[in-house]
Amino acid sequence: MSSAQTSELILNLAPTGMVPTRALSASVPLQPDEIVADVLACAEIGITGVHLHARDELGAPTYRKEIYARIIGGIREKRPDLVICVSCSGRGGITLEQRAEVLTLDADLRPDMASLTLSSLNFPGGASVTSPDTVIGLAHEMRSRGIKPELEVFDLGMANVVSYLIDHDLVDAPIYANLILGNLASAQARFLDIGCLLAALPANITYCLGGLGRWQFTVAGIAVAAAPGVRIGLEDNLWLDVERTIPASNGAMIRKVHTLAAVHDRKVMTPNELRRRLGLRLAW
Amino acid sequence: MSSAQTSELILNLAPTGMVPTRALSASVPLQPDEIVADVLACAEIGITGVHLHARDELGAPTYRKEIYARIIGGIREKRPDLVICVSCSGRGGITLEQRAEVLTLDADLRPDMASLTLSSLNFPGGASVTSPDTVIGLAHEMRSRGIKPELEVFDLGMANVVSYLIDHDLVDAPIYANLILGNLASAQARFLDIGCLLAALPANITYCLGGLGRWQFTVAGIAVAAAPGVRIGLEDNLWLDVERTIPASNGAMIRKVHTLAAVHDRKVMTPNELRRRLGLRLAW
Repeated sequence: MSSAQTSELILNLAPTGMVPTRALSASVPLQPDEIVADVLACAEIGITGVHLHARDELGAPTYRKEIYARIIGGIREKRPDLVICVSCSGRGGITLEQRAEVLTLDADLRPDMASLTLSSLNFPGGASVTSPDTVIGLAHEMRSRGIKPELEVFDLGMANVVSYLIDHDLVDAPIYANLILGNLASAQARFLDIGCLLAALPANITYCLGGLGRWQFTVAGIAVAAAPGVRIGLEDNLWLDVERTIPASNGAMIRKVHTLAAVHDRKVMTPNELRRRLGLRLAW
Repeated sequence: MSSAQTSELILNLAPTGMVPTRALSASVPLQPDEIVADVLACAEIGITGVHLHARDELGAPTYRKEIYARIIGGIREKRPDLVICVSCSGRGGITLEQRAEVLTLDADLRPDMASLTLSSLNFPGGASVTSPDTVIGLAHEMRSRGIKPELEVFDLGMANVVSYLIDHDLVDAPIYANLILGNLASAQARFLDIGCLLAALPANITYCLGGLGRWQFTVAGIAVAAAPGVRIGLEDNLWLDVERTIPASNGAMIRKVHTLAAVHDRKVMTPNELRRRLGLRLAW
């Protein structure tokens, strides 16, 4: 934790996800123009990067690169510096080729990073399947296109797969990971769980902590106090308070993180600083 | 951590300690009237209890009950509700009888709680020796006088001694402990250390987390996010920032904790609520 105390805080916004609907949240951005506007507004407050999911015209999750193109293009038009990570999630039973379609965006629309879930797991709504072949296939696609994986770690086995990918030369240093806590069937937002995950991961990785549902701000508080970064946004939680009385917006969540960061004298890391740390292209 | 999210936050102020001097801190309260005034000012902001050390006329640590009497009397005159814990520390090589002298204060000056360090350890300035006989002797004195031990846990062995004391019927439920992190030769302000300490402690204890030196606000952030309580004050750290550019005061530290608590929608626990939880006398 030594370095976290005086380091800049990576603030990774996950504004949309696959689960929130308009019925569940008045403020969740779903259509490309909504996502662009919300991300740009949060960038005005101060964020380092975004973790994007796309939705189709009906609001359903989609892997289609045309939709991602509109989001990425819209964000980069105003904020070419923001680090953009797209989702290669497999929830919904799509093929490897479909999951990787967004990786084929090129030229000015190429994403900086893409999510790589490191194993299969259960979410409340069902199984999320990412087979070993798919993990390796996506890692290969990302590397071949110069897209940095955002390694999604939900449990100890996934932390072990990070080491496997490094040992088998399937990912390039520097390594970036999200540790996502609080799902019923994976690691919890507990000190021992977090400590064991970090002990199982390579010592020199860059990571954000994220909490699901009611654990979001618990984890955010822990992360701002003692971790390199925090992942936050409506993808993971729809409420601003644990009692679920105040509907959240991405902007309100980002402002709460800024309040925590101020207490700890931590500045939010600029997108370009994260680009330097991760060896990402510096300007679009 | 489940209960911590929605529970009131125990805020335990350690205003003085044994190490700070006037040369080291312009605002550390040393003399009884200074300690009383500072504690009462912090109580106006909002605290649950205080962990007191006494100093003699020259500012040196003292075990003398006459000095403690002036502090306790001064605080209780205005705030009879505040939970008062006195130090039975052995730093300085005093005898068991000297360490226990403050426990003999009676009637309206009897402390609610007293610190019980559970083993010997090294601090930067030297060894702090609390022999097994002293641990048991102090526990016995406290129980016989109706004073609740504040169990001071610096490392895994001390967590084990908590279980020993319970198993050998040397302390009464409910159990209260401070987990003090960041001393070179004991547990660090790391997730794995905290997680292991909590795993080694009885599941139903009430505890505060405290960080030493530059770890103080890191631990405070973690504690406000996910623990029952936080210990904070000039006893443990003289600076408001990690870079040590802003000298701290107890009031400024308490205000920082209140800012964190507001983000997490946690109220600071009232002294009387802690009295109820720990079975302490409800009014003086």
